[in-house]
Amino acid sequence: MIYLKNIKLTLTFDGSAYHGWQRQKNAITVQETVENALAKAIGHNVMLVGCSRTDAGVHAREFVCNFSSDTQIPSERLPFALNTYLPKDIVCLSAADVPQNFNAITSALGKRYTYYIYNSQFPDIFSHSWHCRHTLDTDAMQNAARAFLGTHDFLGFAAAGFTVKSTIRTIHSLNIEKKDSMISIDVSGDGFLYNMVRIIAGTLFFVGSGKILPKDMPDIIASRDRTRAGITAPADGLFLSEVYYEKEI
Amino acid sequence: MIYLKNIKLTLTFDGSAYHGWQRQKNAITVQETVENALAKAIGHNVMLVGCSRTDAGVHAREFVCNFSSDTQIPSERLPFALNTYLPKDIVCLSAADVPQNFNAITSALGKRYTYYIYNSQFPDIFSHSWHCRHTLDTDAMQNAARAFLGTHDFLGFAAAGFTVKSTIRTIHSLNIEKKDSMISIDVSGDGFLYNMVRIIAGTLFFVGSGKILPKDMPDIIASRDRTRAGITAPADGLFLSEVYYEKEI
Repeated sequence: MIYLKNIKLTLTFDGSAYHGWQRQKNAITVQETVENALAKAIGHNVMLVGCSRTDAGVHAREFVCNFSSDTQIPSERLPFALNTYLPKDIVCLSAADVPQNFNAITSALGKRYTYYIYNSQFPDIFSHSWHCRHTLDTDAMQNAARAFLGTHDFLGFAAAGFTVKSTIRTIHSLNIEKKDSMISIDVSGDGFLYNMVRIIAGTLFFVGSGKILPKDMPDIIASRDRTRAGITAPADGLFLSEVYYEKEI
Repeated sequence: MIYLKNIKLTLTFDGSAYHGWQRQKNAITVQETVENALAKAIGHNVMLVGCSRTDAGVHAREFVCNFSSDTQIPSERLPFALNTYLPKDIVCLSAADVPQNFNAITSALGKRYTYYIYNSQFPDIFSHSWHCRHTLDTDAMQNAARAFLGTHDFLGFAAAGFTVKSTIRTIHSLNIEKKDSMISIDVSGDGFLYNMVRIIAGTLFFVGSGKILPKDMPDIIASRDRTRAGITAPADGLFLSEVYYEKEI
C-alpha cells in the first residue's frame, strides 16, 4: 500500500509575470510554474490546491497550497529542493505534513490582503504600488473604512463573473496607514469576493479624493450596487499578506 | 546671443537592466537612456554630467546630473516632460536652474550609499538585496564599522582599474541597522573609490560571519592590502541614497 502524505506549502511570489494563480490554457500561471518545478523536485506530477485564485499581476507574501504525494523527501528539505527549480520570482518558504483533511482553500479561516498606494508627485520605482499624484485624505479613508467592518452583503464590491453562492462576507479589520509617501490599506476577513479588495481600495481612493463622503459609506455598502462603489484599483498594488488556518495545522 | 541654462536633474533608477551610468559602446547605460529621452523632451541633443559612474546593476534613490541647454521648457515642468519619454525603471524627480559653475561630479561634497543584506533562510523577492542564509552578528559589524570613520588611505578597499590620483577618503558615518530580516549598511563620506562601498559591505559581511574580528579592522585598513579585506558584495544590494552639495544649489 502506498501511503500518500498531504503536504502544505507556503510560497511567496511576485505576480508581475503571471496570469494569476490558477492554471489556464493560454497563459502562464503561478500554479503551473510551481507544479512543473515540483514535478522536477519530487519526480512525479502533482496537482496543487491553492488557497485563492489571485488575479493576474497580484503578488503574495504568503500563499498556501497543498498536494498529495508519496515523496520520500522530508518536508523540511522540500523548500530547498523546490527552490532549485523555481524561477526567481517565486520562492517556497516552508513545507509541512498536514492532516489528510487539510485543504488550502476550504480549510482557510480567513485572509489578510494589503493594498499599496504611493501618494507622491512621482511613482516609486522600487515598490509594487498604485501611483496617485494628488494628496489623499487618509483620515477620511480611515473613517470610511469603519463602515466595512462586520458582516455585510458585499454584492456591490464584487466584479461580474463570480461563481460563489453567497456574497455575504465578514471583514475583521481594515486599517489605513501612511508611512512617508506610502499608504497601505490592510484588510482581513473570512473571505473575499472576486476583485473585492481592489474595489474596496478603489472606493477608499475615491473617499481620499473627496469623491465619496465617509458618511455615505454604509449606504453604498447596503445598496449592493456596484456602480455606487469606486473603481477597481490596479492589480500591481495588491498583496496577499497572510492566510489563516486552525492553529494546529 | 543664445543664453544657455545650466540645469540640474535629480533622478532615481533601478539599475538592474543597465550597465551602470556612464555611456558605453556596446551596452545600454542610464546616461544614454536619459540623454535619448531628454533629446525627445527638449528637441536637441545634450550631454549629461553625472555625479558618479555607478557600477552595472547598482540602483539610485537619488542620482544627480546636469546639462547645458537653451530649452524654453521651464525647469519645474521638465520632469513631467522627461518622464513621458523615460522607461519605467528611471524617473526624473526634479529639475532646477543652477549657477553656471555647478557640476554634478566636481561640486559634490559627498555621497551616501546604502547596502542591503537580507539575512534569512530564503531570499526576499520584493527587494534588491544580497541574500545571506547564516545569521550575521550585526553587533560585531557595528563595532568593526567604527574603524572606517575618519580619514584613511582606502587603497585596500578599491578594485583594480581605478584612475584617481589619491586613495585617501573621509568616511563621515557608517551605520548598521537590522529591521526584521533586512540589514542595512549606510555609509556617507566625501567620496568613494571604485567598488569601495561593495568591498566595505563584503568586509562587514566577513565580520558578521566571524571570519574577520572587529579588533583587526584598523590593521586591515592601514595595511592598504586588498587581499586582507573581504569580498566585493554583489551590485544588486547597493543603492546611491543621497548626493550632497552646497545648500544654495
